[in-house]
Amino acid sequence: MGGDHAPASVIGGVEQFAAAHPGARFQLHGQAQALAPLLAAHPRAAAVSTVVDCPDVITMDMKPAAAMRKRHSSMFSALAAVKDGSAQAAVSAGNTGALMAMALLQLRTLDGCHRPALAAQWPTLRGRSIVLDVGANTDSDPEQLIDFAIMGEAFARAMLGIERPSVGLLNIGSEDQKGHDDIREAMRLLRQHGTVLEMNVHGFVEGNDISAGTTDVVVTDGFTGNVALKTAEGAAKLVGSFIREALKSGPFSMLGALIASKGLNGLKDRMDPRKVNGGVFLGLNGLVVKAHGGSDPVGFDSALGVAHQLAASSYNDDVRASLSRLAAARAAATSASAVAPAGNDALDATN
Amino acid sequence: MGGDHAPASVIGGVEQFAAAHPGARFQLHGQAQALAPLLAAHPRAAAVSTVVDCPDVITMDMKPAAAMRKRHSSMFSALAAVKDGSAQAAVSAGNTGALMAMALLQLRTLDGCHRPALAAQWPTLRGRSIVLDVGANTDSDPEQLIDFAIMGEAFARAMLGIERPSVGLLNIGSEDQKGHDDIREAMRLLRQHGTVLEMNVHGFVEGNDISAGTTDVVVTDGFTGNVALKTAEGAAKLVGSFIREALKSGPFSMLGALIASKGLNGLKDRMDPRKVNGGVFLGLNGLVVKAHGGSDPVGFDSALGVAHQLAASSYNDDVRASLSRLAAARAAATSASAVAPAGNDALDATN
Repeated sequence: MGGDHAPASVIGGVEQFAAAHPGARFQLHGQAQALAPLLAAHPRAAAVSTVVDCPDVITMDMKPAAAMRKRHSSMFSALAAVKDGSAQAAVSAGNTGALMAMALLQLRTLDGCHRPALAAQWPTLRGRSIVLDVGANTDSDPEQLIDFAIMGEAFARAMLGIERPSVGLLNIGSEDQKGHDDIREAMRLLRQHGTVLEMNVHGFVEGNDISAGTTDVVVTDGFTGNVALKTAEGAAKLVGSFIREALKSGPFSMLGALIASKGLNGLKDRMDPRKVNGGVFLGLNGLVVKAHGGSDPVGFDSALGVAHQLAASSYNDDVRASLSRLAAARAAATSASAVAPAGNDALDATN
Repeated sequence: MGGDHAPASVIGGVEQFAAAHPGARFQLHGQAQALAPLLAAHPRAAAVSTVVDCPDVITMDMKPAAAMRKRHSSMFSALAAVKDGSAQAAVSAGNTGALMAMALLQLRTLDGCHRPALAAQWPTLRGRSIVLDVGANTDSDPEQLIDFAIMGEAFARAMLGIERPSVGLLNIGSEDQKGHDDIREAMRLLRQHGTVLEMNVHGFVEGNDISAGTTDVVVTDGFTGNVALKTAEGAAKLVGSFIREALKSGPFSMLGALIASKGLNGLKDRMDPRKVNGGVFLGLNGLVVKAHGGSDPVGFDSALGVAHQLAASSYNDDVRASLSRLAAARAAATSASAVAPAGNDALDATN
């Protein structure tokens, strides 16, 4: 029921997805009365779906605390189905804050994971990268960034099919001494634990490295990641508007655009944000995919694809194994530092 | 002497600028021997320039601490000329960290300003906006963000000619309760002091609002601002590469691109980063413009334009007046809070 065009966009997306994936089955959590006419019009969706009637609706502007009280909402019910194992993943285009709060309450974080993160797939010059956290948290300490690196690495393996994804930490320079204390401490921990985890740690990356595809995974705190994602969307939109103006700037430009229309439509398709829809909440005991609030059927279909691929992958086992190895490494580091002599800070500072 | 193509790019830029601005005079701080043949080849530049011989050169990868010891460098000497009043502004394409450290040492911060900020001009759907800090600081507390708002407002007035520029604070949501404690405290202070300063405070803006041009000024900490700027550059480059591929995707696309070439060249011109070159260090007792390290003559000319326009404006008086009013407001707020009863935190938390 969540999202600007729900529930029609959801049923439309299911119809499209079901056609391409005959094995997929759906639970539709929502107001049965609103869903009935839509299912009547979408026979493919109807054939593979079960409706779970939920009278309550979480509106897009509802505060998470208020949403949490709506236990008969489609959102709460869909997450409960993931919790009880009757669904392998939940997909929602609804209120992000409410979805995050409810998912955290019902599914809890994975053992060894401090906080969940929202991961996005980012188109790059080299294909696609994973960027996280893009907004599940308002800030993140160094230990949390290490969790994000592990979850992002496993996510890249599952979604992009890369055996040993390279992992970068977003900073304002690429040299190890750049940035503030927290980010340098995160890099120190990442290198330390990365060795134990056999992670392909690239080092620091800068803002322009994201779209360049310098690394397969870009780790950052939720504040910076959210600003970066939205800033890139805004910049892409600006350039798109410049292109449209340039191609309307005179009769020759318009004629040229007409002749090149096939190529330009390919470009449009490539820049279509609906095709990389589906941010994923990582770090929970269960898969939760957040489709864009403005999703239409094409966008919702794409978010379903993310859920489907992730559920079929070994992501969950992969990330659990890494987190438990990290927990062991952290415990070892703590007991080692308890017996190690104190470092000479005065000497260290001269390096 | 700083920058990838110096000193040729600098002399070329001066030659170009001098042609368009017959009244401008230049001090060229650098190795006289390297400058002589260039000046011989650029008679316009030679006619309006005085050479100040500086044997030392600050390399692009030199640490600020090492650079500071080079007192006979072109960078140090140019800043000294601003300090002693013989130059109205210094322009350098050199090492940013070194320039910042040297400028801070020689020019000091303006009274009432905690830290300088690096301001960028950002192309938007509506024209141009000012974004700061884009990298002078690795983090910024709420009080510093208020300084940035004042400096950015005055800068927008001087560069964009807007009488009452709107000011936004970059966050991960537009509602007042969004973001972490620091950013909400900054908004509270901005609203409080903004009233005293008669500032047009818009409220929070998100990443996509920057390129949309929602506000004339976007205030953020140096870490987030630097990531946002570089991420936008990367995204614009990505879209640009998609366009080039689309227009080479087949014979019709190539023909169309040929016919539309005039319009597309206009686009290229519009996206040319050299045309909005020149980040400005705000908050110092003197004007310092940082041209991009990769500046060619066109880029350096554009950075000279920023310095020229700013030096001719009332920016310096404007920002000094605002900072002194802010200092008065801060003093009043401190003495008021010293006598006010403590707030009821338990009640506040329920809002």
